[in-house]
Amino acid sequence: MENSHECPKMVKDVSLQELRDRLAKFASDRGWEQYHSPRNLLLALVGEVGELSEIFQWKGEVARGLPNWSRDDKEHLEEELSDVLLYLIQLADVCGLDLGEAALTKILKNAQKYPI
Amino acid sequence: MENSHECPKMVKDVSLQELRDRLAKFASDRGWEQYHSPRNLLLALVGEVGELSEIFQWKGEVARGLPNWSRDDKEHLEEELSDVLLYLIQLADVCGLDLGEAALTKILKNAQKYPI
Amino acid sequence: MENSHECPKMVKDVSLQELRDRLAKFASDRGWEQYHSPRNLLLALVGEVGELSEIFQWKGEVARGLPNWSRDDKEHLEEELSDVLLYLIQLADVCGLDLGEAALTKILKNAQKYPI
Amino acid sequence: MENSHECPKMVKDVSLQELRDRLAKFASDRGWEQYHSPRNLLLALVGEVGELSEIFQWKGEVARGLPNWSRDDKEHLEEELSDVLLYLIQLADVCGLDLGEAALTKILKNAQKYPI
Repeated sequence: MENSHECPKMVKDVSLQELRDRLAKFASDRGWEQYHSPRNLLLALVGEVGELSEIFQWKGEVARGLPNWSRDDKEHLEEELSDVLLYLIQLADVCGLDLGEAALTKILKNAQKYPI
Repeated sequence: MENSHECPKMVKDVSLQELRDRLAKFASDRGWEQYHSPRNLLLALVGEVGELSEIFQWKGEVARGLPNWSRDDKEHLEEELSDVLLYLIQLADVCGLDLGEAALTKILKNAQKYPI
Repeated sequence: MENSHECPKMVKDVSLQELRDRLAKFASDRGWEQYHSPRNLLLALVGEVGELSEIFQWKGEVARGLPNWSRDDKEHLEEELSDVLLYLIQLADVCGLDLGEAALTKILKNAQKYPI
Repeated sequence: MENSHECPKMVKDVSLQELRDRLAKFASDRGWEQYHSPRNLLLALVGEVGELSEIFQWKGEVARGLPNWSRDDKEHLEEELSDVLLYLIQLADVCGLDLGEAALTKILKNAQKYPI
């Protein structure tokens, strides 16, 4: 983050490893690692997927780009999407797996499974 | 990605924007964008979270690092973690939201909410 | 249910059809049927499964019978279990399916699939 | 069930207690109780909710009554709805809670919370 002031555009294009490192430090600084067993994190992830679903539950079909959503509703959605992501990254991390590498591998597998 | 050939280790350190771009191209190349409405992608995400949960369902508590898991079981887990991630990235994308920026913002909010 | 007045203990032994009928009347009385499309109810169900998971998320393994849980925690769990059930019943209902009959059929199929 | 042959219509109107009893016997007959810890059953439930969501994931909005669904698709849906129900009943059971009573109580609470 020290560089973020010099290079603001890069702040957005964050890598999975940077997020993983930040989250590991966040948990370590607070002594929370003891709670971060794989199944605890998995259930926390499921909880956040539930909150994400609640945003969409009574809306019927939703158009791409969310044309009629308020700024507040979009921010709420950004928070819930983020919560899912952050627990997913932590789950992969405590399992000792590299989520970014796994995702790239999966995209290659999908490309072979579904040729153009 | 231009740098990936000069710096092979960086291949793994993939950013959310790169994954988003690859997934958008993948869907576009196959004419799948028509299926990628927000709620379709959300339900696909829930489906993958289900498959992720099935991996852990009869195991009782699981130790960090998955010490007794076979290579095959770990690969299966990597695939399911990736599937969740890839649908999450696509859901954010069709909603017009920047998942990486949102995640960084959420980490800052969490740091304020839970001081060290 | 005619017998429920003669046999008060049976009140608890509620059938899926009675719950379905009560929920249909509840929604009808409030003009909520318009919101009860299959996918809306499915996402509401996912939301409640998330709330159910949140109860268990930081607890590590939990013993059968919940020996150390407070009365309040058990009541909270009862509510979330109920919310999942009530949306599941309504989802089956708007799909025109008989959940109780389907469940009995599934138990028979499972008995054939997994002989004693 | 002894009466089911005399009163076939009642077979469908199954109660939650009867389903619970059948499921408890099913697990006991197969020595599966050892696997039925609360969190194992919860994750199995999440897995089935995932399979339920997969049925709906690429369909866009679905009309009440599933007018264009094949008999096979409806049977598949009945099976997944049942799987969710059966794990939910077992989860409540191993937690020592009466799901039917809890559901009736929740409907009453909802009626107070949302007056007509």
